[in-house]
This record gives sequence, structure tokens and C-alpha cells, in this order.
Amino acid sequence: MVRYMTTWLPTLTTKTPEEGYELAVKLARVAIKMTQPDASIREKLRPEYAGDFDALIASSQVVATHFATVAAANGFWRERS
Amino acid sequence: MVRYMTTWLPTLTTKTPEEGYELAVKLARVAIKMTQPDASIREKLRPEYAGDFDALIASSQVVATHFATVAAANGFWRERS
Amino acid sequence: MVRYMTTWLPTLTTKTPEEGYELAVKLARVAIKMTQPDASIREKLRPEYAGDFDALIASSQVVATHFATVAAANGFWRERS
Amino acid sequence: MVRYMTTWLPTLTTKTPEEGYELAVKLARVAIKMTQPDASIREKLRPEYAGDFDALIASSQVVATHFATVAAANGFWRERS
Amino acid sequence: MVRYMTTWLPTLTTKTPEEGYELAVKLARVAIKMTQPDASIREKLRPEYAGDFDALIASSQVVATHFATVAAANGFWRERS
Amino acid sequence: MVRYMTTWLPTLTTKTPEEGYELAVKLARVAIKMTQPDASIREKLRPEYAGDFDALIASSQVVATHFATVAAANGFWRERS
Repeated sequence: MVRYMTTWLPTLTTKTPEEGYELAVKLARVAIKMTQPDASIREKLRPEYAGDFDALIASSQVVATHFATVAAANGFWRERS
Repeated sequence: MVRYMTTWLPTLTTKTPEEGYELAVKLARVAIKMTQPDASIREKLRPEYAGDFDALIASSQVVATHFATVAAANGFWRERS
Repeated sequence: MVRYMTTWLPTLTTKTPEEGYELAVKLARVAIKMTQPDASIREKLRPEYAGDFDALIASSQVVATHFATVAAANGFWRERS
Repeated sequence: MVRYMTTWLPTLTTKTPEEGYELAVKLARVAIKMTQPDASIREKLRPEYAGDFDALIASSQVVATHFATVAAANGFWRERS
Repeated sequence: MVRYMTTWLPTLTTKTPEEGYELAVKLARVAIKMTQPDASIREKLRPEYAGDFDALIASSQVVATHFATVAAANGFWRERS
Repeated sequence: MVRYMTTWLPTLTTKTPEEGYELAVKLARVAIKMTQPDASIREKLRPEYAGDFDALIASSQVVATHFATVAAANGFWRERS
């Protein structure tokens, strides 16, 4: 398997829950890029699914799954509350 | 990645399970906002999916996934029972 | 975020696995109420999805996700077997 | 919330992984019964979804989610291998 | 509940991650057999869903869920790396 | 069950989170190969689903589920941050 990007994911550790959430969004998007590497096709699809509520909810589900992983990796940022 | 909102998620810790559930709902909605940042489009979509049971159930699934994370982050609020 | 109901979720602790399952069903339904607060619309949708097997299975999936959380919160009720 | 069946889930503990899997199947089905309590409607739907591969796969997903819970509740039956 | 097969799942322990993955595939398939016990109907459905990418992806999702369980049951086969 | 490939998954341990993500992508794809072993059919399906946003999001969901497993297997690569 060819390495996709050399430095896109150095760590799962983030300073805050917000940054953890942003990392989860990124993790969700990279899989889409790896399956559809052609940016022009992705750009064409983007407005379609951004206007389709089923797709928006499904995207949110992927983020939720990754956020669970990132949160666990960060000990749920418990010491920051 | 641009920071979406600076203070929307300071912590996963909540005082009660109910507040944890509300946080899970919020976590589910933010991903939708990040994918579809145009509030007018989201407002247009909202009544459609709020009247579509497949979308309602799918939304509930996202909340369930986030609630699992929030509950774990709070030690399941065990000492409060 | 406005508090939805003040006392609907005081704890994740239940006396038995059955009550834990019932709580999971409740957790699944509350998200639907929060997305579609109009009870008359929900009542109109209910017979439709209760007669649609895709919706029934998807609902069962949400319950399964919440049941995992409730079961973990209760230490899987292990001492009760 | 009305109690559905008084004794259908006394424990998550099972003697073997196979019985744990059967319990997961049961857990998946009870949610469907609780959403569609009319047995005659369920019986009418059953052959439809049993011949629909999307529904079969979705049902298997629900079982997988419950099996994860049951397996954790039983310490993965590790001492039995 | 009738016992489906007496010896199909003696343990979740496998010698290698690969065998764990194969077990996850098996766990995904058994639920389908239990919902649709008629092998001739399953055989008829198989080429349809094997040529349908939504179904292929959904099947892969079920395997992923079971693989998480099997991996945890095996301590992620950590000592083998 | 016939062994699919003898050496495709020697371990869940990876040196970095990026490699863990790549392994998650691989884990997602193998299940599809096992369900549809005919490479020519898979090649025919690939451009279709790579241009279908529902399929892209669903694929990303499978990767997310496997990534959770791989991340846990690697202790979330905590010591590397």
C-alpha cells in the first residue's frame, strides 16, 4: 500500500476537545480522498451531498465514530474540565 | 484546518446524564454545520428531514454514538445514581 | 442549548438488564423527539415506520448502540446472574 | 414506560459464545417487537425482509453490535478456549 | 430459542489476526443464515448483493464491528507483532 | 473456511497512526474482496461507487470502525506524540 500523505496524522493527541473534533472530521475525510483520489470529482460531488440531508447525517456518523477514538486516545481530556 | 468555533466544546464533562445527552446532540449537529456551513441551506433541509423517519432514526444513531463517548468521559455518572 | 426535559434521565443505572434495555429504547426515542418536537408529526410518522422493515431494523440499531452504553454503565449487571 | 416482558432478559451472562450470539439475536429482535408490537404485521414483514439482502445485512449489523456487548459482559469467554 | 448449530463458535480466541478476521466474517454471515434459513434463497440473493457496492460496503461494516469484538477478545494479538 | 491470503494481516501493530489508518483502509477492503472475489467485477464497480457520495461516506464509516480497533491495539500511539 502506497503511503497517502507523509505527515497528515502524526498523533491522535490534541490539546482540546475541539481540536479532537476537528481531527475526527479530518479522519472522516481522508478515507473519502483515498477512495476517490480525483479532487475534481470530489469537488463536483461536494455540493450535492452538502445539500442532501441523508449524506450530511451519514457524514456526521463517521465523525462520531472517529471522535470516539480520538477522545479515548486523549483520556477524554478529563483533566481540562 | 480552520478552527470552526473557538469555544463550543471546552470539555466533555457534564454534571448530569441529561446534560451529557444534550452535548451528544450538539456534537452530532456540529459535524453537519461543518459539512454544510450555509445556515440558509440547513434551515431549508431541516423541515424535510424532521418529517422523514429514516433521517430521524439516522440522526438518533449519531446521537447514540456520541452519547457513548460522553458517557464514558463522565465515568457514566455512576456516583450520581 | 435549552434543557429539553428536566428529569427524564437522572441516571444510567438500572436494577436489571431488562430495565437497562428499556432505558436504551428511551434514549433512542428522545433524540427523535428533540429533532422533531411536534408530537402530531411524530404520531403521523409512527405507523409508517412501524410498518417499514428498514426503519424497524435501523431503530433496533440505535437501541443496540445505547444498550451498549447502558450495559457498560451498569458493569453489565454481572453480579446479578 | 410499560414493562415489555417480565423475564426475557435476566442476565447478559451465557455459558458459551454460541449462546451469547443467540442472545444478541434476541436483543436485536426485541427492539423490533417494541416498535411494532403487532405480531401479525411483523409476520407479514418477515418474508419481505428475509428476501431482501439490504435488510439481512442491516439485521446482521444490529446483531454484531449486541454481540459486542454480550461478549464484553462475559469477559469474551476467554477461559473457555 | 432453538440452537442454530451446536459447534460453530466454540471460542473467540484465534491464533492470528487473520484467523480473527475470518471469524468476524463468519460471525457476520451466521446472522444472515439465522434470519433467512433457506439456503436456496440465500444462494439466489448472493450474486445480487455481491454485485451491488452498497451491499458490499454494508457487509464490510458488519465484519468491522465483529472484528473489533474478536480483536478485543484476543488482546489485539499484541504479543505476536 | 478457506484461508483467504496467508500473510495479509500478520499484526495490528503499526509504527505510526498514519500506518494504522492505512491498515484500517486495508481491513475495510478485504471484506469486500472476500464477498466479491472476482476482481473484474470489483474493478467494474469501483468507478461507480467512487463517484457516488453515499458509497464514499459508507466506506469511510467502515474505515472509522476499523481505525478504532487498530488505534486501541496500538495503545493509541500515545507515546509518539
